[in-house]
Parts: sequence; structure tokens; C-alpha cells
Amino acid sequence: MKAHNFSAGPCILPQEVLKQAAEAVVNFDNLNLSLLEISHRSKNFVAVVDKTTALIKDLMHVPEGYSVIFLQGGASLEFVMVAMNLMKAEGGKAAYTNTGTWAGKALKEAKNFGEVIEVASSKDKNYSYIPKGFSIPDGMDYFHCTSNNTIYGTQIKEFVKPNCLNVCDMSSDIMSREVNVADFDLIYAGAQKNMGPAGCTVVIVKDEILGKTGRKLPSYLNYQIHIDKESMFNTPPVYSIYVMMLTMQWLKDNGGVKWIEGVNNQKAALLYKEIDRNPLFVGTAAVEDRSNMNACFLLKDESLKDQFDAMWKAAGISGINGHRDVGGYRASMYNALPLESVQVLVDTMQALEKAQG
Amino acid sequence: MKAHNFSAGPCILPQEVLKQAAEAVVNFDNLNLSLLEISHRSKNFVAVVDKTTALIKDLMHVPEGYSVIFLQGGASLEFVMVAMNLMKAEGGKAAYTNTGTWAGKALKEAKNFGEVIEVASSKDKNYSYIPKGFSIPDGMDYFHCTSNNTIYGTQIKEFVKPNCLNVCDMSSDIMSREVNVADFDLIYAGAQKNMGPAGCTVVIVKDEILGKTGRKLPSYLNYQIHIDKESMFNTPPVYSIYVMMLTMQWLKDNGGVKWIEGVNNQKAALLYKEIDRNPLFVGTAAVEDRSNMNACFLLKDESLKDQFDAMWKAAGISGINGHRDVGGYRASMYNALPLESVQVLVDTMQALEKAQG
Repeated sequence: MKAHNFSAGPCILPQEVLKQAAEAVVNFDNLNLSLLEISHRSKNFVAVVDKTTALIKDLMHVPEGYSVIFLQGGASLEFVMVAMNLMKAEGGKAAYTNTGTWAGKALKEAKNFGEVIEVASSKDKNYSYIPKGFSIPDGMDYFHCTSNNTIYGTQIKEFVKPNCLNVCDMSSDIMSREVNVADFDLIYAGAQKNMGPAGCTVVIVKDEILGKTGRKLPSYLNYQIHIDKESMFNTPPVYSIYVMMLTMQWLKDNGGVKWIEGVNNQKAALLYKEIDRNPLFVGTAAVEDRSNMNACFLLKDESLKDQFDAMWKAAGISGINGHRDVGGYRASMYNALPLESVQVLVDTMQALEKAQG
Repeated sequence: MKAHNFSAGPCILPQEVLKQAAEAVVNFDNLNLSLLEISHRSKNFVAVVDKTTALIKDLMHVPEGYSVIFLQGGASLEFVMVAMNLMKAEGGKAAYTNTGTWAGKALKEAKNFGEVIEVASSKDKNYSYIPKGFSIPDGMDYFHCTSNNTIYGTQIKEFVKPNCLNVCDMSSDIMSREVNVADFDLIYAGAQKNMGPAGCTVVIVKDEILGKTGRKLPSYLNYQIHIDKESMFNTPPVYSIYVMMLTMQWLKDNGGVKWIEGVNNQKAALLYKEIDRNPLFVGTAAVEDRSNMNACFLLKDESLKDQFDAMWKAAGISGINGHRDVGGYRASMYNALPLESVQVLVDTMQALEKAQG
């Protein structure tokens, strides 16, 4: 039996993708060689990079004037690179929103390179909501937000349009819903939620914003170098990019981002409806800011924990333990999670209610 | 027919490893989940990281007081991190050897952080030899060398013992021969030659040398943070680490580094003997500095190129075109390349000689 995989990331990938991904480890492109043992500069692999780039541009409707590059080091290295590449060397200033663990880390790393102004925070209520109606001072080099907060289960529904460069960490909801890339100057995302396996970071950047800080940048940390070398400045994370290509192709073949947004809305609606209906459970995030990717909820009566845990494990569910900072449960419903898995979780929640009489 | 894979990297991996690596993409540890879709903090994957670390420590006889960590960004990011972590913030100075393309890049990146003294170079003869007998000025924060130069086919046979910290980029020959780790303070290597697929960098560092520069370090670029978090500061390159574990286990099961050093010596001796014997070919590297990993050679008569290329392709050989900076041929003979493949190449060289009469 295939598990119902609600893991928060790395997370479920489409089953068709995994089959092809396994084949390529043994024999890639009928070369009688594994994908893992060919040169990254071979024409077969260069074709993979080109196709992955094209698929991302196509699926997200990336406008002219933007580049898509593949890096390593996850969002954690982007926290550093964004600040190094966009904050002025002298008197640099940036505005950050503090909406959760990762947003807070991004903010902290930027402080290494200039002044950081925290323009909004939801720390007062354990990051259970998305701050709104805040203002951004003039003279900022850029504004930074985190579109989805995996740990706390909140998601920005309406993006701010700042009076400066707009930077967004979309690690945990990229490709899950339509966004207007033209509203942003730089988008980055670790691949390991909706795009593919761990080991690759995708950066979508408006070309004209780079090279304006007066800061001397080491090569690997300079976006422009990766753009100029078409993600081949050094050996890229070959396998991660390949599996990302397969995943993006799966998304395109099934109807693209518009289609998956509909599916994701359906899955989230099904689960949140049960959380709100079932008297044994309570959601932790503000209703209007609930994430379609990560639903966080608690048992009202903690003494039912062992019983519920045994029930969902028996139902083949995996990965719904909440993050240690929130407790309770977190059901992550990334793109590849089928509606059926959410139904199994809902059924299990109802079975617990029934068992309680 | 399986190709005879002389690729310079990413490169051949053991066939047994590839089979297991493919299986894990479909079902890992009998979890009914792919390795690509489980949490990096799951006990099953933490066990992979722990085992890989233990295997590296075991195979290389890493002494007490050293840490082994897994990073991303390849040697190119280490060029930056080494300098940031070891060069004093005020008046930092380091000695570099310039023995090829990658050594030159390492040297260039260090200049972003302090004064770099090029203590030796083989640029005068297109990097065809390893400089010897040079001196290192006093007061250096560290000395940096590149143990094997893939592009030019040279390899350090006897390491310098500097009067300062000793740093070595072993990307292209780590695990191919026994080295005394205690002679070094920091060793780094992209995994994609002898250790595994692309996407992971291994760093072996003497703990006591860190935190002494007075430089403020962003988190991802700080070795100490990765040591403290046991390579789980952020999502690691899961699949690359897993395949590295399988490859290290393969090496251990077959007799370890001492065993593979013997095999590598045999393979290199076989090929260099033919290069020296066959009147149609000439080696490009100084004989005493020849690399056991990458043998670079030329056809004396370039007009035979099409004929020779057709012959080795027909023999199932792949990946022996020389790097564009050297031309000719480069046969990379990493750990997983069987002696039989070298024999096929030697046979093909002899067949060309015979065809010429």
C-alpha cells in the first residue's frame, strides 16, 4: 500500500515522475549510462536544463526580461544572496516581514549586509496570521516577504505592492497557485515542495535589477554570473534538476498551475471544513490567512492523541505530526498529494469523533 | 552494452550502487515512500547522514577533533567559504598554489577577503607540471593547494607541509588514494568524482581552527553552524548524500581506500605505458606529476583524429574528449571505472597503430 504522504518537505512527488526518475538512474536517454554518471555539459543534460527552464517560464508565464536560474544551498543561501545582490554596499536598507520561522531567518541574515526594517510581524500571536495594512518607509532597497509559512500554516492571499523592489520567498507554495511574476523583481524557492526533490533552488529574477549595489561579490554568490553561465557556472545538482523537469512536465500535461490551483483549493476546502465541523479539532491559523499547502490543527483534548495517532497510522497516513514550535498536527497538501489522501484523513478524523460517541 | 565511461565528472559510479539508488527512488527502506519524498529529519534519513559520515571517517581514518559535514554549491562555494572562515578579517593573508583552472579560481575568490600570495604556479607551461621546492612566507592564515588537476592531468604526489593551516581541494582525487588527514586542517571535495553524484560537497575540518578570524559570517557560509547542526542546518541534498553512502559502502566492502589505490595504480600504469609506447600518442603532463585520475594525451598526427574517434566510439568508449583548454584526449579513471575499460581503450590505441601499419 502506498502511504498517504502529508510530509512538510521534502514531500510527495507524482508517482509517474518517480518511476521515470528511477529509470534514469539506471539508463538515461538510452545512453547505456546513468544520469548520475554523465557530464553536466553533455548535450543530453544541457537539454534537461534548457527544458526545465522553459517549463518554469511557461508554467509561471515569466515575462521577458526575467531569468530563471538553478542554484544550490536552499532558501537559506538565498537569504544571504538576496541581501548581497540587492542591498546597497553603502547605507543599504531593506524592509522585511516577520511572519514565521523562515521569514525571521531571512530577516536575520540580511542584517549582515545593511539595515533591516521589520515592517510587519505576527510574532505577538505565535505567527498565526498574516499582518496587513502596514506601511513601508521610502528609500528601501527592497521589500521581502514569505508567501507561505509552512510551520504555522499561514499564506499571503493578497501580495503587497511595495514602492521598491519586491522580493518573495515562495519556497513552500510556488507552482501551487497563479501569481503574476511581473509584480515581483525576485522570486526564490527551494525545489523540495512543489517542484522536485531537495538539492536545487530556483531563482526568478528581473535582469535589470542586478549589479547596482556597488558591492564586490564572490562568484558563486553573484546572480549575474549564474545567469551569464545559464546555471552552468559550476556543476549543477544534476539529478534534482532532472526530477524537477519531470515534475514540471507532469504539471503541464495535467493542465498547469491554473489546474493545480483548483485541485489545491478543493483539497484545502475539504480538510478545513472538517477541522471546523469536527468538535474534537481546532485550527491554529487565522481563518482568512489559512494556507492551502499546510493545514495546522490541534486536538482540543490532548488525551485523545494516542488514539488518533494509532488511527491515522493504521489508515496509511504519514507525516502529519506538527512542527515542534506549534505542536498538534500539520497536514501538508502539496501539488502531488491526491484528493483521496485528504479524504482518508477526513474519514479518520470522523472515525475518531464516532469512536468518542 | 554498458558504455566504457571515462567522463571527467560527474562520472562513473559502481553499477551495484546505481541499482540500489534506483530502487530507493521508488521505495526507500520499505517505507512505501520514495527517498525523494520523505522528510530529511525522518529517522530513516538521519540514519543515512550518520552512516555516510561514519563511512567517510572510517575510510579516510579521520582523526578525533575533525568534523565531516555535507554542504552544497560545489568546490566553487568552498573557494568562498574557506577564505571567509579562515582568513583574518583584518589583514588576512593566504598562500595559494596556481596549478590549473580550479586552483586559479580558488585563488581568485580568496582575493575578495584578503591578500593572496601566489607561492607557486605552473602557468608558464600550460599547467603541465606540479611546482616543487617553493617557500611559503611566514604569517599566512593558511596555505591552499589542489591535489589533482582534472583538466591538465597532474596530481600532487608529495604534499607540502606548510608553517600555517593546510587546506586542500581534493575534489577530483579524494578516496582514490590514502592521505594522512592529520596533515591537513581542512579538506573539501565536490562529491561528483569518486564519492557520488553531483549536488553535495564534503568538508573535513579540524574543529579548533574555526571561529578565529574576527569576521562576521552569514549562517549558511559558516562551517561551525553546519557542524553544530550535523549537516542539518537546512534541507541537505538528500539523494546525493544517499548515493554517496552507497558508494562509500561499496568502497568499504571491496577493501577500502588502500584497495582502490592499488586498482587505480594498475589502471593508470596500463594506460600511461601505452601512451609512452605507442608512437602515435604523446602524454601532455610531466611524467613524475601524472594524475592517476585523469590521463591527458594527444595524437601526434592530428589528421588521425576522425579515424581514432570513430574507433573508440565503436568500442563503446565515452567521455574521452580533452577539455577545450588542452585539446586532445582525457581519459578519466575514477574509482568505479573497471580495469577492463582501460584495457579496451589501450586495445583501441593499439588497433589504430596497427591500422597505420
